[in-house]
Amino acid sequence: MEIRKYFEKSELIPAIIQDAVTNEVLMLAYMNEQSLSKTIETGYTWFWSRSRSELWNKGATSGNMQKVKKIIADCDLDTLLIKVEQSGPACHTGKQSCFFNEIGE
Amino acid sequence: MEIRKYFEKSELIPAIIQDAVTNEVLMLAYMNEQSLSKTIETGYTWFWSRSRSELWNKGATSGNMQKVKKIIADCDLDTLLIKVEQSGPACHTGKQSCFFNEIGE
Repeated sequence: MEIRKYFEKSELIPAIIQDAVTNEVLMLAYMNEQSLSKTIETGYTWFWSRSRSELWNKGATSGNMQKVKKIIADCDLDTLLIKVEQSGPACHTGKQSCFFNEIGE
Repeated sequence: MEIRKYFEKSELIPAIIQDAVTNEVLMLAYMNEQSLSKTIETGYTWFWSRSRSELWNKGATSGNMQKVKKIIADCDLDTLLIKVEQSGPACHTGKQSCFFNEIGE
């Protein structure tokens, strides 16, 4: 499978993680070519941690893994939308989604 | 409203645009502090175009504008999820969502 085309503009691209069942947006993380390759190969999400500069298998420590149902690139091939079956909360805070700080409230 | 905190790590942050009615993820674009400020002030989405290096009022040309219903920052304040009422297709290709290139199909 040719995945290099997604990394032509940038080595790291954003991946939006959406719950395949509820359609809730759970988190956003970054992928390089190797993490996308491991995600496709294993069927679970792998990201590149910008702060730790390392590959990161989401949920490997917490057990809250993300089983991949669908990977969809956008019109200009520089962003991914990944639909997953989420085990447990997606956020390290214990919340289901990382998006909980409403602006203007 | 204090929005500077979202731009401490980076001048540009990704904003995920989600249809407030259907929960479909429509697109991802980038915001700087000025575009977020104009989005809050006008109630419609403004982005920073990385390719044209200019502020961009989504739909100003096509008429396919995005009325903002909710803006939610993530746990570490470096990504936004914006729920919108989308007029017409969100993608410049004429498709409803920019995410239509399924990988592995």
